[in-house]
Amino acid sequence: MKTIAIQGFEGSFHDIAAHGYFAGEDIRLICCATFEQVFENIRRSPDIVGLVAIENTIAGSLLHNYELLRDSGTTVAGEYKLRISHCICCLPEDSWETVAEVHSHPVALMQCRGFLANHPELKAVEAEDTAGSAKFIAENKCRGWAAICSRQAAEMYGMKVLEDQIEDNKHNFTRFLVVATPGREGMLRTCRETDKASLVFSLPHEEGSLSQVLSILSFYKINLTKIQSLPIIGHEWEYMFYVDVVYNSATRFCQCVDAIMPLTKELKILGEYRHDGTNPTI
Amino acid sequence: MKTIAIQGFEGSFHDIAAHGYFAGEDIRLICCATFEQVFENIRRSPDIVGLVAIENTIAGSLLHNYELLRDSGTTVAGEYKLRISHCICCLPEDSWETVAEVHSHPVALMQCRGFLANHPELKAVEAEDTAGSAKFIAENKCRGWAAICSRQAAEMYGMKVLEDQIEDNKHNFTRFLVVATPGREGMLRTCRETDKASLVFSLPHEEGSLSQVLSILSFYKINLTKIQSLPIIGHEWEYMFYVDVVYNSATRFCQCVDAIMPLTKELKILGEYRHDGTNPTI
Repeated sequence: MKTIAIQGFEGSFHDIAAHGYFAGEDIRLICCATFEQVFENIRRSPDIVGLVAIENTIAGSLLHNYELLRDSGTTVAGEYKLRISHCICCLPEDSWETVAEVHSHPVALMQCRGFLANHPELKAVEAEDTAGSAKFIAENKCRGWAAICSRQAAEMYGMKVLEDQIEDNKHNFTRFLVVATPGREGMLRTCRETDKASLVFSLPHEEGSLSQVLSILSFYKINLTKIQSLPIIGHEWEYMFYVDVVYNSATRFCQCVDAIMPLTKELKILGEYRHDGTNPTI
Repeated sequence: MKTIAIQGFEGSFHDIAAHGYFAGEDIRLICCATFEQVFENIRRSPDIVGLVAIENTIAGSLLHNYELLRDSGTTVAGEYKLRISHCICCLPEDSWETVAEVHSHPVALMQCRGFLANHPELKAVEAEDTAGSAKFIAENKCRGWAAICSRQAAEMYGMKVLEDQIEDNKHNFTRFLVVATPGREGMLRTCRETDKASLVFSLPHEEGSLSQVLSILSFYKINLTKIQSLPIIGHEWEYMFYVDVVYNSATRFCQCVDAIMPLTKELKILGEYRHDGTNPTI
């Protein structure tokens, strides 16, 4: 049995993603209040695996999770892409007529902005978690309160779904990373070769330094699927680059890393894994 | 007198940025509830100028504003960088002992997460705006409610500051763009030459296509200060790239744009302007 640390409660999108990635396996969840706690769990028990959201087609990258990933020393062992759909739910004895507040995570509230604009009678209240809001309302019998969460969470906590698929944009996917203690990621892998990697590096602000690195990637036939620059706080004109690449040959990828190493600073391979091709783009 | 459309109320960070950028000039604000309304104002009255947040050192890029900017057909005429600092404030007759809820914009609540974790007695409530929360509480005499907003907004609405500088990370800067109807940006410029530009383009997912474009930028001595890839929804393996560059010669920049044009798709210059060097990095 594998133990998976996630941020959020049972029924959260992290829970759904964990069960999706480890489909058919026996898993036990550790539900954490924060992403920091997910990484802290892995640090204390190297057999624990983490699953963390890293980007969303609407909200963009979770920059803070990139930092946690880089600072934690964990390695990326896999990715999973999940279609995000929200519903609004309340206690079975409540209805549209009696609901006055809606509780959810700020990102979920933001993703349902259009829906909320059409319901000015609902006061939006920020909560720690989507599923956690449903759980709280169910357990504390909060009359007049609604939650925005997954349909699975609503059903799990015995809540009544008032409306389903209330997210503004249906092209709403979140990409999750499976993170593990280096050396332990083997237990997560079948024998298949990797075909994707996440890297982070910085560059001196010399003319064309990024162009040189990308040229070498191109010579080695390593393809970018994501690039994001982040200014390094306090170092004017210096940047961190978070890059995802896909490749056909893991050997070629290793050779390419050797080739770009001297041109970069603080190059770190965050992990090599199999890309999730089940859902389009991210 | 110039008319500036901003998102948010008087006292908001957009207001502070507008007065900072147009320091010494006579300006009139149009306070909009949404960024969409800012662009709608410019569309209807070409003499109206907009000021919109585009990225923050902590929260990252406002991807939706990039889309609005691209779709609106407006041009970027300038940038302004502002240090973001939040305070918590309440009615003069309230105090730490009597305050139970804190209202603010979800991004501000997120930026004060550490502070809020230390005050579990405060219920965080999502609102449309930081300054707007202070205004609402002041005007409606909401006993027991606090707002998170700028010190300026707290003072403007006669609120009592309970604690200042409550943001978790003091390296909190927001970069704003001044946007205008093409052809009208002249009124915003002194005769100084431009030295920065924002571009957006897409690339076919051919090996090394980004590397080719960046090589040409490098040959022309055009320096990147930001690059961000965004997957194009529904087009697997195709990406939009938002790129900011700085340069010494506007002529050289124009020649470079001509040189990369044939290698890109849907290349659009979002604007050429003077870079704001008053604050470090973004």
